[in-house]
Amino acid sequence: FDSKKNEKPDIGVVTGLAWTAYGGVILDVEVATITGKGRLITTGQLGDVMKESAKIALSLSRKIVEKMDKKYCEEFDKNDFHIHLPEGAVPKDGPSAGVTLTTAIISSILKKKVRNDIAMTGEITLRGKVLPVGGIKEKVLSAYRSGIYEVIIPQSNEKDVEKIPEEIRRKIKFNFAKEILEVLEIALIGGVENENK
Amino acid sequence: FDSKKNEKPDIGVVTGLAWTAYGGVILDVEVATITGKGRLITTGQLGDVMKESAKIALSLSRKIVEKMDKKYCEEFDKNDFHIHLPEGAVPKDGPSAGVTLTTAIISSILKKKVRNDIAMTGEITLRGKVLPVGGIKEKVLSAYRSGIYEVIIPQSNEKDVEKIPEEIRRKIKFNFAKEILEVLEIALIGGVENENK
Amino acid sequence: FDSKKNEKPDIGVVTGLAWTAYGGVILDVEVATITGKGRLITTGQLGDVMKESAKIALSLSRKIVEKMDKKYCEEFDKNDFHIHLPEGAVPKDGPSAGVTLTTAIISSILKKKVRNDIAMTGEITLRGKVLPVGGIKEKVLSAYRSGIYEVIIPQSNEKDVEKIPEEIRRKIKFNFAKEILEVLEIALIGGVENENK
Amino acid sequence: FDSKKNEKPDIGVVTGLAWTAYGGVILDVEVATITGKGRLITTGQLGDVMKESAKIALSLSRKIVEKMDKKYCEEFDKNDFHIHLPEGAVPKDGPSAGVTLTTAIISSILKKKVRNDIAMTGEITLRGKVLPVGGIKEKVLSAYRSGIYEVIIPQSNEKDVEKIPEEIRRKIKFNFAKEILEVLEIALIGGVENENK
Amino acid sequence: FDSKKNEKPDIGVVTGLAWTAYGGVILDVEVATITGKGRLITTGQLGDVMKESAKIALSLSRKIVEKMDKKYCEEFDKNDFHIHLPEGAVPKDGPSAGVTLTTAIISSILKKKVRNDIAMTGEITLRGKVLPVGGIKEKVLSAYRSGIYEVIIPQSNEKDVEKIPEEIRRKIKFNFAKEILEVLEIALIGGVENENK
Amino acid sequence: FDSKKNEKPDIGVVTGLAWTAYGGVILDVEVATITGKGRLITTGQLGDVMKESAKIALSLSRKIVEKMDKKYCEEFDKNDFHIHLPEGAVPKDGPSAGVTLTTAIISSILKKKVRNDIAMTGEITLRGKVLPVGGIKEKVLSAYRSGIYEVIIPQSNEKDVEKIPEEIRRKIKFNFAKEILEVLEIALIGGVENENK
Ligand SMILES: [Ca+2]
Ligand SMILES: [Ca+2]
Ligand SMILES: [Ca+2]
Ligand SMILES: [Ca+2]
Ligand SMILES: [Ca+2]
Ligand SMILES: [Ca+2]
Ligand SMILES: [Ca+2]
Ligand SMILES: [Ca+2]
Ligand SMILES: [Ca+2]
Ligand SMILES: [Ca+2]
Ligand SMILES: [Ca+2]
Ligand SMILES: [Ca+2]
Repeated sequence: FDSKKNEKPDIGVVTGLAWTAYGGVILDVEVATITGKGRLITTGQLGDVMKESAKIALSLSRKIVEKMDKKYCEEFDKNDFHIHLPEGAVPKDGPSAGVTLTTAIISSILKKKVRNDIAMTGEITLRGKVLPVGGIKEKVLSAYRSGIYEVIIPQSNEKDVEKIPEEIRRKIKFNFAKEILEVLEIALIGGVENENK
Repeated sequence: FDSKKNEKPDIGVVTGLAWTAYGGVILDVEVATITGKGRLITTGQLGDVMKESAKIALSLSRKIVEKMDKKYCEEFDKNDFHIHLPEGAVPKDGPSAGVTLTTAIISSILKKKVRNDIAMTGEITLRGKVLPVGGIKEKVLSAYRSGIYEVIIPQSNEKDVEKIPEEIRRKIKFNFAKEILEVLEIALIGGVENENK
Repeated sequence: FDSKKNEKPDIGVVTGLAWTAYGGVILDVEVATITGKGRLITTGQLGDVMKESAKIALSLSRKIVEKMDKKYCEEFDKNDFHIHLPEGAVPKDGPSAGVTLTTAIISSILKKKVRNDIAMTGEITLRGKVLPVGGIKEKVLSAYRSGIYEVIIPQSNEKDVEKIPEEIRRKIKFNFAKEILEVLEIALIGGVENENK
Repeated sequence: FDSKKNEKPDIGVVTGLAWTAYGGVILDVEVATITGKGRLITTGQLGDVMKESAKIALSLSRKIVEKMDKKYCEEFDKNDFHIHLPEGAVPKDGPSAGVTLTTAIISSILKKKVRNDIAMTGEITLRGKVLPVGGIKEKVLSAYRSGIYEVIIPQSNEKDVEKIPEEIRRKIKFNFAKEILEVLEIALIGGVENENK
Repeated sequence: FDSKKNEKPDIGVVTGLAWTAYGGVILDVEVATITGKGRLITTGQLGDVMKESAKIALSLSRKIVEKMDKKYCEEFDKNDFHIHLPEGAVPKDGPSAGVTLTTAIISSILKKKVRNDIAMTGEITLRGKVLPVGGIKEKVLSAYRSGIYEVIIPQSNEKDVEKIPEEIRRKIKFNFAKEILEVLEIALIGGVENENK
Repeated sequence: FDSKKNEKPDIGVVTGLAWTAYGGVILDVEVATITGKGRLITTGQLGDVMKESAKIALSLSRKIVEKMDKKYCEEFDKNDFHIHLPEGAVPKDGPSAGVTLTTAIISSILKKKVRNDIAMTGEITLRGKVLPVGGIKEKVLSAYRSGIYEVIIPQSNEKDVEKIPEEIRRKIKFNFAKEILEVLEIALIGGVENENK
């Protein structure tokens, strides 16, 4: 995997944190909205658990933005959502990209850029709760190695932060999230608070 | 699995009771209705028996609410029903979430909150009969451990309650159900009796 | 399997007779018609032969009721037919539920109740012929044990009745059918003769 | 398999000849046209070669009747074609039911009855050529045992007739066909010649 | 396989040359256009490579005839294309029927007969290039045995012709093709040159 | 595989570079746009990773050309995109045809020819980044052997160029790309700069 931080903030591109047998890695999620009819297209050799995460992320994103403004309803009717996780040949699976996928989709609908100096991990549920995931230590170390010094991790993983060597830990800004709205407020440039009318 | 009781009553969220090789667990069912065309989307690594339970729950819910008021007919034409069972990576199967799934769907259509201080288990049939299930003792103990002191179980499982240690049994309120309408009357805040016109 | 006779006659619910390695059992077929577009939904872990029986039952039912009255044509265009065989986790297969499935579908379209004091078995063909099936002795004994004293079986199985112990046999009323219309005339309350115009 | 000749001529029902490890059998093909949109439904545990035969039979039937009269074009647009081969649980495969399937479909469209005192076998091609098949001797013997004394077999199988014992052979009327139109002229009551305008 | 040359030229029927473990064979391709909506139906137990060849042949045919005359565009919208390769039970695979499939489809659209005294083989690409194939010697010998004395083979296979025994080779007329248009000009009665406006 | 350079520049045809166990090969990508409804058809025995590359290429191409001119939006609604990789029977897989596929699709939409004297390789992401691939040395040698003296490879593969023997390396013109737009500017005759309005 490419271990370089993205050069600049972009719409529909979010830096996730993944965990492999060889340690943590940063992993981009890319979302493209293309004219269509509400379908979900996934590429990047996603396993069945991750494909289900993408479905959850799409339904949840829909709930969230439609609550912000009714005008977004039709975005879902007239677009397809293509989610790609480079590198395309490496199989990827597990539920921990849930918050990353949701953030990428919402960024692409609201047309708000995502900070490229932050990385995130966390399982998501259909009503937006952020569930704990494994490999927090390895994931944070990989962010650090890639030059990313701020992360968003699940509230329930707070205890895992202590396992990170102190000299690195104190250079990282940790955000603990219980709900997806907290994630969006931090990661999207401009936040989402003004969107709630 | 997360063994904490939900913090507050919510629409489309029901606490189920499941049974694993390691004992009973509480298991949330989440339902989101999203603009669509009557499709059923299931996530959470459901096995084929549980996927069929979700289909039965959807058809049964449709029958029930359309009998309450014709206005609900169109709800099914213009919405998709997304059912998710966290945690997303843990495989789940069996018929015993039938009443839980049905209650969650009906809550989301009627926009009535479900009590968060009650848990339930039971197979459902297409005409709303509640059939007996296994693991009653283990399931009730898991509710107790999670701080939930009221349960709904199938009438035909009444005999299984005696296997629960008396000091716990007397702290639990047991509701025995033969029909899904009895379940809804207890679990939905405000009940469903007024809905029948 | 639940071995109790249904409490009262109902629309879309028919008592079938099945045959397992452990002997005969009674087995309900439930049909729900829900607003849709003529699709067939089957649940209850049906094997591929039984799923095909359901397809045959649907096509045959269509032919029969459309011959009774042209008004039924549109019923098939605007409804889906959901067939469920409790208990949902027990795999079921074979062709011998053909007459039961057909009777349940036709009951649900004509809105005529099915007698709950009668049980039936028989393969069906697309033009309504009733073909012989196995396990007649075991099936009839299971009806008797469940308190059901009248059965419908294929004409070609008449010879198998002699294998049933005489003290039980003389307490049972046997109906032998060659065609599905004979089955409907007996099982549907009010019969179907008046329907033929 | 049921080895009895059908009681009377019917629309959409044709007696085929099949060949199993236990010898020849007669095998009904049933076709029901139901309101729909040109789809093909097959039941009776057909293998993939026989399912393809049914597709060929449907396309060929379409070509033939549309050539007879343009009015038949819309029959294919507004109907589904359900083909069933009793007995429903016995797997069936191979290409030799091609002529039988085609004859049954065309009977059901033209609403012409098929002779019940004749049986047939033969592979069909998309342009209506009748190709040779195996087991002619066993098939003809099974027709004879079932009380059917006239058969249609492929022209290229003429040589196989000599293997049939003479005392039976001379009681059977053999029709040898090279093209499906020859089969239809013999098997459909009233023939098809007048249909060609 | 039937090794006889077709009796007369026909629309949508082309003689191909195939190669098996037992030597070369001639193999008919049959195409029927039936009222529909642009779908491709294949029968004759085609393997996945040959099914892809049929898809390529359909797209290529479309490009070719639409270039000839815009009026053909709607042919593809209102017809299905059924391709069958008798004998229906024999599995067939490989890319070498590409030119044969394309020729059969174009014949059926232009309603031009195909010469029955010529046989062909060759892989096709999406832009109409003819690629070399194996088994040229065996294929040509099978054409000869079937009474066919003219063949079309890929230009790149010209060198393989020398392997054919001279006494047979000099009785055969060889056409070498680099592009599908050269094949069509030779095989379709009347050619296609006048079609290009 | 055919190792000859294409004779002339063409629309929708791009020379890719692939890597097999036997060394590098040049590999054409052919794209045909046919009247349809935005579907993607792939042939040539593509593996699942390469099929995903084709999906990414289609979504990305859509984004790119719609940004150039809104008029291209409808091209995607009224056309199907058929992508073929000859030779049809050889399985192909991997992500490294991403830039080749995207270039071929965009060529076919813009109706701009692709240079036949250039070959390319590189994984593509959904937002158009060009990712590194393996086998650069073998791929460049195969281009050289086929008479192609200019290549486009990913920027991140620049270091691999040193492994190519110097006498060949100095005869090749190398273009290093980070983004797909750089690839298009070089490979499409006339470039794409004027397209950006
Ligand atoms: Ca899995
Ligand atoms: Ca967990
Ligand atoms: Ca299962
Ligand atoms: Ca049970
Ligand atoms: Ca039971
Ligand atoms: Ca089976
Ligand atoms: Ca039988
Ligand atoms: Ca097979
Ligand atoms: Ca043969
Ligand atoms: Ca294959
Ligand atoms: Ca080759
Ligand atoms: Ca794979």
